[in-house]
Amino acid sequence: MEHIDGNWFREENDKWSGYSTGIEIERILCFEKTEHQEILVIKSKSFGNVLVLDGIISSAERDEFAYLEMMANLPINCHPKPEKVLVVGAGGGGVVKEVLKHKSVRKVVACEIDKVQVLNVLLGKCLYITGPGEGLFTEEYFESMKMSLKQDGVLCFQAENIFMDLPLIKEMMTISRNIYPKVEFGYSVQLTVNGGHFGFILCSLNKDTSFKEPLKKYTDKETKEMNFKFYNNDIHRACFSLPNFVKKDLYQDALIEQ
Amino acid sequence: MEHIDGNWFREENDKWSGYSTGIEIERILCFEKTEHQEILVIKSKSFGNVLVLDGIISSAERDEFAYLEMMANLPINCHPKPEKVLVVGAGGGGVVKEVLKHKSVRKVVACEIDKVQVLNVLLGKCLYITGPGEGLFTEEYFESMKMSLKQDGVLCFQAENIFMDLPLIKEMMTISRNIYPKVEFGYSVQLTVNGGHFGFILCSLNKDTSFKEPLKKYTDKETKEMNFKFYNNDIHRACFSLPNFVKKDLYQDALIEQ
Repeated sequence: MEHIDGNWFREENDKWSGYSTGIEIERILCFEKTEHQEILVIKSKSFGNVLVLDGIISSAERDEFAYLEMMANLPINCHPKPEKVLVVGAGGGGVVKEVLKHKSVRKVVACEIDKVQVLNVLLGKCLYITGPGEGLFTEEYFESMKMSLKQDGVLCFQAENIFMDLPLIKEMMTISRNIYPKVEFGYSVQLTVNGGHFGFILCSLNKDTSFKEPLKKYTDKETKEMNFKFYNNDIHRACFSLPNFVKKDLYQDALIEQ
Repeated sequence: MEHIDGNWFREENDKWSGYSTGIEIERILCFEKTEHQEILVIKSKSFGNVLVLDGIISSAERDEFAYLEMMANLPINCHPKPEKVLVVGAGGGGVVKEVLKHKSVRKVVACEIDKVQVLNVLLGKCLYITGPGEGLFTEEYFESMKMSLKQDGVLCFQAENIFMDLPLIKEMMTISRNIYPKVEFGYSVQLTVNGGHFGFILCSLNKDTSFKEPLKKYTDKETKEMNFKFYNNDIHRACFSLPNFVKKDLYQDALIEQ
């Protein structure tokens, strides 16, 4: 438990050298080394229960809705008829819960490598995917995702912090563009994970997919009925507006129109 | 220097109980108790020089452009002809530098309470204002700001973190609405300060001011000439798209149309 410092959990790692998020601990609920990773669950003073994987904050009860709603509803609302969904790295099941709000969805397959973390472990053909951790960002992985997708299939995955990980994001965009005819980068905010914001990349097998304009428009009443605390159509459109230093690296360098 | 912990600066305070941002220190450049505050300047491992005031990270060389460009250019680009500008809490002069990029600006007055921090200390009538710290959020302060503004005058001030400070933001919105006919809340991102993002409130004496649509449209060429690393017209529009939990507290509760 090298990241525990008195009453505090300190996220310190080589990836984000010189930066640390600290969460005050009320009680340690679970600490377990599985065959895949080190799992730590903290009852925190201010953010509810916090899940830490290999020393990196994975989610916190208080603000995880901001991440989960975006990761699930962005791809869902860019697909004309989402029916079968694969969630890779399903963890505590938060994305699955969001996906199941959508009436058109007939089947959700949730994959999680770690039995200790898991809800359900299944495998199958899918329509689109959300997910995963750093180790998975390989060309091979992206190819296998492509094979799992139907025509019109949409893929969405987490893509790090614009201030700290731009070279990695650029690499992920290049790999994605080599495989998918339509690729878009956006970012949104939460609090405890990833330095307060997270990027995501959306890919589609259909070059005419418009990620920036959601296909499903929600009235205020529908937004309420869906119990969206974060997601709405305006946020969906807004999250693709990028600062110049990000646009330059991800779009203009590559001479690709955003 | 209670916030120094070995090689790390730890931002820990009662306002954000249970949360801490840590910055790794290469060298301490300055530590001084002035009559107003405790000033600490760190040469950090990863974020350039970092300014800390009373134990709270105020700015970091590497990512301050994200904050400075938004705080200066949002109000400037909502005003039909910005000529006289007052910057309250001018600190290192970053906002002033942004303001001076605009050719219509004839006079900038920069106020800073602390001589040790200061660029210039001046006082005067003004067109609009950016700024300040928590201690200034009083009805009296807002009234005095109003008296300094010309017709069409615009005020912009920092308004905290949507995940941690919503009750305070709501209070600031209520005070602002009692004084100004047009008030709008938005938020944007940086990295090291304030948990990774910051809200801002824009106020105008003219109820027809449209904060969401910038008056000045920049071509890509002009954006480059202005040396904007962060700000562009799309980001300007996007930063007013609010998550539902924020909208509910700041707009719908109050039965105010956003």
